[in-house]
Amino acid sequence: MSKRKRIFLNAITINGVAPAPGMWAHPDDRGSQYTSLSYWTELAKTLERGHFDALFLADMLGVPDVYQGKRDAAIRQAIQIPLNDPGYLIPAMAAVTKNLGFAVTYSTTYENPYALARKFSTLDHLTKGRVGWNIVTSALESAALNFGLDEQIDKVERYNRADEYMEVVYKLWQRSWEEDAVVQDRENGIYIDPSKVHDIRHEGKHFRVPGIHSSEPSPQRTPVLFQAGNSERGREFAAKHAESIYINTPTIEATRALVKDIRERAERYGRDPSHILFYPKLTPIVANTETEAQSKYESYLRYSSTEGVLALFGAWSGIDFAKAGPDKLKEFVKKFDTRGVMAEAEAQDPGHKWTETELANFCAFGTSSLSIGTPQQIAEQMEQFVDATGVDGFSVGQIVQPGTISDFVDLVVPELQRRGLVQSEYGEGTYRDKLFGQGPHLLSDHPGANIQIPE
Amino acid sequence: MSKRKRIFLNAITINGVAPAPGMWAHPDDRGSQYTSLSYWTELAKTLERGHFDALFLADMLGVPDVYQGKRDAAIRQAIQIPLNDPGYLIPAMAAVTKNLGFAVTYSTTYENPYALARKFSTLDHLTKGRVGWNIVTSALESAALNFGLDEQIDKVERYNRADEYMEVVYKLWQRSWEEDAVVQDRENGIYIDPSKVHDIRHEGKHFRVPGIHSSEPSPQRTPVLFQAGNSERGREFAAKHAESIYINTPTIEATRALVKDIRERAERYGRDPSHILFYPKLTPIVANTETEAQSKYESYLRYSSTEGVLALFGAWSGIDFAKAGPDKLKEFVKKFDTRGVMAEAEAQDPGHKWTETELANFCAFGTSSLSIGTPQQIAEQMEQFVDATGVDGFSVGQIVQPGTISDFVDLVVPELQRRGLVQSEYGEGTYRDKLFGQGPHLLSDHPGANIQIPE
Repeated sequence: MSKRKRIFLNAITINGVAPAPGMWAHPDDRGSQYTSLSYWTELAKTLERGHFDALFLADMLGVPDVYQGKRDAAIRQAIQIPLNDPGYLIPAMAAVTKNLGFAVTYSTTYENPYALARKFSTLDHLTKGRVGWNIVTSALESAALNFGLDEQIDKVERYNRADEYMEVVYKLWQRSWEEDAVVQDRENGIYIDPSKVHDIRHEGKHFRVPGIHSSEPSPQRTPVLFQAGNSERGREFAAKHAESIYINTPTIEATRALVKDIRERAERYGRDPSHILFYPKLTPIVANTETEAQSKYESYLRYSSTEGVLALFGAWSGIDFAKAGPDKLKEFVKKFDTRGVMAEAEAQDPGHKWTETELANFCAFGTSSLSIGTPQQIAEQMEQFVDATGVDGFSVGQIVQPGTISDFVDLVVPELQRRGLVQSEYGEGTYRDKLFGQGPHLLSDHPGANIQIPE
Repeated sequence: MSKRKRIFLNAITINGVAPAPGMWAHPDDRGSQYTSLSYWTELAKTLERGHFDALFLADMLGVPDVYQGKRDAAIRQAIQIPLNDPGYLIPAMAAVTKNLGFAVTYSTTYENPYALARKFSTLDHLTKGRVGWNIVTSALESAALNFGLDEQIDKVERYNRADEYMEVVYKLWQRSWEEDAVVQDRENGIYIDPSKVHDIRHEGKHFRVPGIHSSEPSPQRTPVLFQAGNSERGREFAAKHAESIYINTPTIEATRALVKDIRERAERYGRDPSHILFYPKLTPIVANTETEAQSKYESYLRYSSTEGVLALFGAWSGIDFAKAGPDKLKEFVKKFDTRGVMAEAEAQDPGHKWTETELANFCAFGTSSLSIGTPQQIAEQMEQFVDATGVDGFSVGQIVQPGTISDFVDLVVPELQRRGLVQSEYGEGTYRDKLFGQGPHLLSDHPGANIQIPE
């Protein structure tokens, strides 16, 4: 391998039917098998065969209901509904793999911190230190209502609360149990030394947690921390807490700017900026020839669901494109047309009236993240993107499940390995050790590593 | 098999080190491996080999801290601490078994009902309908504080809240999605028919949940419902909701009375009293000869931890026996001495001054549930106990892990099978189908089966 840093690879999915709108109907798609354990254990084995670093399990609480002012389109196309709890997939996948990491989404707004700390300690034990936590604060109003709130908590307040939440869980994970608290001293009949287990005595604005952590120290103590915030407050939060960041910015320029901005903020928190890894979304369509790859893309497009795409756009933007009309939609879509496909089409046919479906199709699989071509072409694009933006790897999304991933593993990974761009063998130790070459606990410049509890 | 109803077998354990105080130090005990997936998958395979109905995963929130007015003894002996989240064990165990059920404890006091409903739907999908829920309301003050409450909610109020909680989850599980909502209609591009997914519009005293359930219907919809309440309010709750009840009453008479009482209450709720199954605790020490069994018992007793037993007694009774003294302890222990061991010892030595350790040893492994002997003797005791009390099966507890279970599977189960008392093959269908010969959904006389949501 050359001296350059390797490219990190995560796969991204949800515990549901269809990340790509309409693709459930494609003959190659097996996403509807998400309720079956073997579907997940097979996926995990495929990812480990491809030396992926981790599977990233996204999650959303609440159903998209902006488009047409109701949730019907989202339900018809199974967009973020049904959506099962992603955490329970991990133990079964961990049992059939040895090195793959698992990053799972749980919300600081709806999970009690004392219970959440126990969840991650449990998962970190069972996976022998292979778990990560994607920290979200949950943006959807419908989730707030179902969780019994009168209304959504304001975004800045959600992040302030999340900041204190992190303090609570750091105290539980990092400080409640000393490293040598579990002595298993048969001679003196002592399993745990009580003088080495401490109350965290947390008293804050949002949380009060007086006691000790329920779990003994797990391999990593604190899971590898993921974040995906993009707003001003989200970036600040990420710069302070995240070790891994999922991003989905439309252009090279926007990506580079985001990476630079968060790394600079991290330095202001006293952190080494290289201790945050960035993984933009990549949606690969690969085949041995360009023509084949293109015809795969076209076959996928035929199944793309316009109403499904618009339901997703509604959730992202808050705009109901059924009301806003095609001009507004065109404006929205154009931002994502980083490959210039729309511009090219307009040059050929300047007077063209865009239909909803045409516009939706531009973004059906995330235009900016879409990469169509041969293994060589995709590998080259990935390398160039890394060099141009300073990101550390990719979050590989799926169009057909698990075909997009297995194609990538079979075709692109060997090419990346040949070029010395990705690992051909896993590193030693926990997920954090594998990412940073040090661990297993939070690195010393991380605020969680230096958290204190009152004497 | 004879015409009598078969005896149901559950194993009971926790996601922690030592259900039996001090046994972690016994050379045969492997309980400290509870953090390892293979420990659990092996246990699951052993249970399925023994045709057990289910593994019951108990859980407690909060550390026992009554004895000596502090938690030190509980910590030294790993009594209910560490205790990891039991739910994450299930997917890995389900992946290596086909028929074993899994009942897991989650608290109505500390779990949000909307999130809990999704958890169980997820688990019921992944296990293909093999999951049960042990409903608890959580009694420990220390848990209340760590979950951010100012103090423990009063017991009656906890149950009132739990009653409404059940309404919420029944609405989500039973009524939000119609059975044929998921159509996967490729021709018309419809995965789910939105007209068949309903808001539950729950507005109650304790909960308000307006929306739809996040999960599509799982095989059982509602998990098999377990309960273990013993108080007046607890019995009433169990009579209304439970399909399976874990009991730990000291005598045949007390057991018979409890079973009769709850069955009569169930009838008043319009339920068939045979639709509640009772499983008292059984702690078997078995060997091929009586002498061997007795010497096993004595080997276990040598490792029993007096302070561990007293920490447990403190948690159960609220009495600090370090302060209350040996007379009070003797009085407490005597209630559990259903085999008359203390009385016999006193007859032989009337002036005997009981030490704390002697008294603790009487109850080290749950005196009333302890059964020591040959496979024939234990099988006979089980049969007699069922006939005398009207219970339906047993919850088999462990002294050394997993030795108590594997001994039982290897020695007692074949004897029970020879006598036609337990199953030699699993029944068809989901966990509920296997228990009642009907299912997979809540039986028609269950209040959850008849829950309505506003039009």
